[in-house]
Amino acid sequence: MDLKASSILAVGGAEDKVNKRDILERFVREAGGDRARIAILPTASSIPDERANFYQGVFSELGAASQHVPIVTRSDAQSPSHAEAIAQATGVFLTGGDQQRLVEVLSGTRALDAIRDRLTEGAVLAGTSAGASAFSATMIVGGMTGLRPRRDAVRLAPGLGVITRLIIDQHFSQRDRLGRLMTAVALEPQRLGVGIDEDTAILYHGRGEMEVLGSGQVFVLDADGAVVHGLEEPPHSEYFTLAGVVLHVLTHGDRFDVPSRRFVRRNGH
Amino acid sequence: MDLKASSILAVGGAEDKVNKRDILERFVREAGGDRARIAILPTASSIPDERANFYQGVFSELGAASQHVPIVTRSDAQSPSHAEAIAQATGVFLTGGDQQRLVEVLSGTRALDAIRDRLTEGAVLAGTSAGASAFSATMIVGGMTGLRPRRDAVRLAPGLGVITRLIIDQHFSQRDRLGRLMTAVALEPQRLGVGIDEDTAILYHGRGEMEVLGSGQVFVLDADGAVVHGLEEPPHSEYFTLAGVVLHVLTHGDRFDVPSRRFVRRNGH
Repeated sequence: MDLKASSILAVGGAEDKVNKRDILERFVREAGGDRARIAILPTASSIPDERANFYQGVFSELGAASQHVPIVTRSDAQSPSHAEAIAQATGVFLTGGDQQRLVEVLSGTRALDAIRDRLTEGAVLAGTSAGASAFSATMIVGGMTGLRPRRDAVRLAPGLGVITRLIIDQHFSQRDRLGRLMTAVALEPQRLGVGIDEDTAILYHGRGEMEVLGSGQVFVLDADGAVVHGLEEPPHSEYFTLAGVVLHVLTHGDRFDVPSRRFVRRNGH
Repeated sequence: MDLKASSILAVGGAEDKVNKRDILERFVREAGGDRARIAILPTASSIPDERANFYQGVFSELGAASQHVPIVTRSDAQSPSHAEAIAQATGVFLTGGDQQRLVEVLSGTRALDAIRDRLTEGAVLAGTSAGASAFSATMIVGGMTGLRPRRDAVRLAPGLGVITRLIIDQHFSQRDRLGRLMTAVALEPQRLGVGIDEDTAILYHGRGEMEVLGSGQVFVLDADGAVVHGLEEPPHSEYFTLAGVVLHVLTHGDRFDVPSRRFVRRNGH
């Protein structure tokens, strides 16, 4: 069957699964609509069978066939039959849970190779909450809440690296996470920080443009031209200076070109 | 006596009055040190006599003479003797409280004329919390907490207008006020938004440079080149797009040039 160019859907968690399911409907549509075959990996979750069953019900209501791929250990992730299940999918869905667990189980395995192969072949990869964070090459695994960039505001770790240009954070304004994302981009200014609200998502297209979906906002932080000082110095204060970071707060329908780091005006605006 | 060029000290509230009193010490120094004569206007406060007495004690401990100027009504603010007390001061201090009360009492009165005259003659004007907010020409009088710019996030009203280039907010990261300040600069992009943390201040010099003082951070928002959409449209969502706002998060010792909207590098950085 024909697939669109590869794309990745990163959801900020708590996407509507009952009423106005715009984000999950878009995922199903990108995966082929009523011909979609979705592989659900509940690897990040502490209750994987329940999560997988739950999403199977939702995708069924949305008219798509889905399969639970029960990967919870590295041994599962090396299983040729699970890799084959992924290879047959037009969409792969990573649930929420713990992004460190997800990366520890998947990195360097047949399952992740199969996901990468399907992406290049045009399948759509989606992750919500922890599943979205894990897409980054440098991944946020924890940190402080609040507005303020501060030396110890964020804990970073290697992620799956399917999107190297972005550091993704989720449940963003609901959990008050701007300070930790500012700290992350101060440390790695070559990457854009992308903070995604609940019931909100970015659809990242192969060519580098991303599109905002859902009911909340997406915060994009560009620290490429910023001046940082006090971050590496002996701490006389926990706070540091971050001058000249560019912030874009985007809503449904907005587009942003990642390689050029520019907002793309919508038609009619 | 000689005075320095006029300057305005805007304090984000909750400045240390007991231990490390850097901000109030700097105010006293700018007002002439042990030759300072400080006029305290507790006009914003709901307990004006108590506030004035309290600050008189603090300034006394810091070695400065101060006088309570008991302006609580517009009639008080028209009193020639109170205006004369202000005319004798090398520093004028506006306490916290309610910025709307402060503006309603002072605007268009002899007292405010006297403050303006003293500023041009080189006295220093300080305000904390509500007293700082009131310096703006367009003043924030209320709004929502949280990260998100949204249509109804901020309530604006005319302020004293002693600093027309800035919209000042206070208790900034402590009360989670970025969303309302982003909304304010989206509405009036010709002004810079300045969000001042507690125990933190800006010293705004006559020539347009401001200096950051204190233990927290100052958030400067420049929406001059930003794209705003969804703010004036019929609401299909309470959120709007604000793309390309420049954010500077500054710490003690940082300087910022307001007319050119540029961070000024510190020596050694």
